[in-house]
Amino acid sequence: MAVISCKESGERVFSGIQPTGIPHLGNYLGAIESWVKLQEEYDTVIYSIVDLHSITVPQDPGILQQSILDMTAVLLACGIDPERSILFQQSQVSEHTQLSWILTCMVRLPRLQHLHQWKAKAARQKHDGTVGLLTYPVLQAADILCYKSTHVPVGEDQVQHMELVQDLARSFNQKYGELFPLPRSILTSMKKVKSLRDPSAKMSKSDPDKLATVQITDSPEEIVRKFRKAVTDFTSEVTYEPDSRPGVSNMVAIHAAVSGLSVEEVVRNSAGVDTARYKLLVADAVIEKFAPIRSEIEKLKMDKDHLRKVLLVGSAKAKELASPVFEEVKKLVGIL
Amino acid sequence: MAVISCKESGERVFSGIQPTGIPHLGNYLGAIESWVKLQEEYDTVIYSIVDLHSITVPQDPGILQQSILDMTAVLLACGIDPERSILFQQSQVSEHTQLSWILTCMVRLPRLQHLHQWKAKAARQKHDGTVGLLTYPVLQAADILCYKSTHVPVGEDQVQHMELVQDLARSFNQKYGELFPLPRSILTSMKKVKSLRDPSAKMSKSDPDKLATVQITDSPEEIVRKFRKAVTDFTSEVTYEPDSRPGVSNMVAIHAAVSGLSVEEVVRNSAGVDTARYKLLVADAVIEKFAPIRSEIEKLKMDKDHLRKVLLVGSAKAKELASPVFEEVKKLVGIL
Repeated sequence: MAVISCKESGERVFSGIQPTGIPHLGNYLGAIESWVKLQEEYDTVIYSIVDLHSITVPQDPGILQQSILDMTAVLLACGIDPERSILFQQSQVSEHTQLSWILTCMVRLPRLQHLHQWKAKAARQKHDGTVGLLTYPVLQAADILCYKSTHVPVGEDQVQHMELVQDLARSFNQKYGELFPLPRSILTSMKKVKSLRDPSAKMSKSDPDKLATVQITDSPEEIVRKFRKAVTDFTSEVTYEPDSRPGVSNMVAIHAAVSGLSVEEVVRNSAGVDTARYKLLVADAVIEKFAPIRSEIEKLKMDKDHLRKVLLVGSAKAKELASPVFEEVKKLVGIL
Repeated sequence: MAVISCKESGERVFSGIQPTGIPHLGNYLGAIESWVKLQEEYDTVIYSIVDLHSITVPQDPGILQQSILDMTAVLLACGIDPERSILFQQSQVSEHTQLSWILTCMVRLPRLQHLHQWKAKAARQKHDGTVGLLTYPVLQAADILCYKSTHVPVGEDQVQHMELVQDLARSFNQKYGELFPLPRSILTSMKKVKSLRDPSAKMSKSDPDKLATVQITDSPEEIVRKFRKAVTDFTSEVTYEPDSRPGVSNMVAIHAAVSGLSVEEVVRNSAGVDTARYKLLVADAVIEKFAPIRSEIEKLKMDKDHLRKVLLVGSAKAKELASPVFEEVKKLVGIL
């Protein structure tokens, strides 16, 4: 009897997360949880703490340095396993910026200026964004291509950037010779978590209303307080109707996601419970989900040397994959 | 009696040359000759074959690879001594693009768009220049700063770019803490050599009229032919009057530069010689100057392994200087 591996061989997943701030419930359910699952499904999964992206906007150096270690602790606590994935710090693998320069020489200015994110960010900053903010999608392409990655889990806001990555891979292959696979997006069933204070908006790190966002390190008391103040509506019954009842539906969606139950089961189980009481039930489920993660994060954050070592080992493994790819790039470009 | 060293201690000279095409008389007298002299005057001189700059415009990979070795041969033959200077290939030292990314996050788009060279190049390419062509002055700043260079020999067309380098060094020091010396321009007595066919224009690699430009590897026959066809005027006497007699004055300037005599001496020695005959005398002086260089280039080009080794050793030395500087950068930025 042949043993059939469920892992697809030769496939490489790449994804990155900025080391700015503690992830919230939306980040966890939208991305980190799927990162953990991808470890089971693919041979090689590469997760990068993309510190070079975070400096496209001003950062305090001391806080940034701490945030890199904090993010490492968060990812480990959430289930990223350095034995089954490569977890590393982008700036420690020089191939990212080296390949990025070569790709920068293959893209025209209007292409970058027309990307939605730049337009939105540049508009917010009164056209005062740095050149790094303009060109970071090219660095992102290099992040992905320098591992010959085949799959990239992405959110909807990254669809345009993935098109750029594919175009750059295609242009390189045409100009210099076949090298890069065209990386495909993995559209994970991203659960979109809404703000607790305005269920028409996404839950966001940068929300000025601190009650809107649940961080995965919030204490049980903070979580209860935030859910108690969560905006629902004036109907007391618990139903799932995202369009007409976004507030309570957001509660139901969060509840289903953290408990592992279906939306239908969650609604059925809540028959006869009014929304005020239901919000506290959801808070309890969130607390239960995050309690072990929270305590693991606390434990890991005490051992900075361990976190540094995890990144060091991960960066060495990442370099081992990126280095031969970049050697091929240099040869094809004629700079070897 | 104290021995006084004429070398200024702690000072570092950096300069770069693109590996595209064989240098001409103007490149030699304008830059390479002064590079050779700087080896005597400064403790540390660092000369980079800047292949990453050359790919901001399309290059054929095979030709580029050959040109990198050719340029190495040319520089060695002209007197760049790898024992007294660091001669290396830019793309082999990753710190250039790594620092460049950090500086890219400190500069605003309009600053780069207003640089003369970009405006001129973008206009020529109907605004179709690559982003690399726009951002290469930032890479140039990284080239210089990643060695904490103190002095940079520059031509007039680079004055704006040197201002950018100084501004970036200053911004970095202010934002992150004192690290970079503000590099100063060395205004070498650049001898401006004019086109042999149009003495109102600079001698240029890209001149479509092949007779306008004397390459340092031209054969004696080619050199004689080009000087014989050099445009002068209808006065037969040899004088130095650049404004009213640019053609013959260009001959005098070249003659003085290659012979090591002053302009006055050259003019005095040429009393009674008509310009037609004088052009052949200048050709002879150029042939005499370049004959040993030309034969040394031919010899060096035969030994590709030697050229590769020179670059390899040089790149390792360069990396040894750049690496600790970039470590300091990472620490200050908070990404170590």
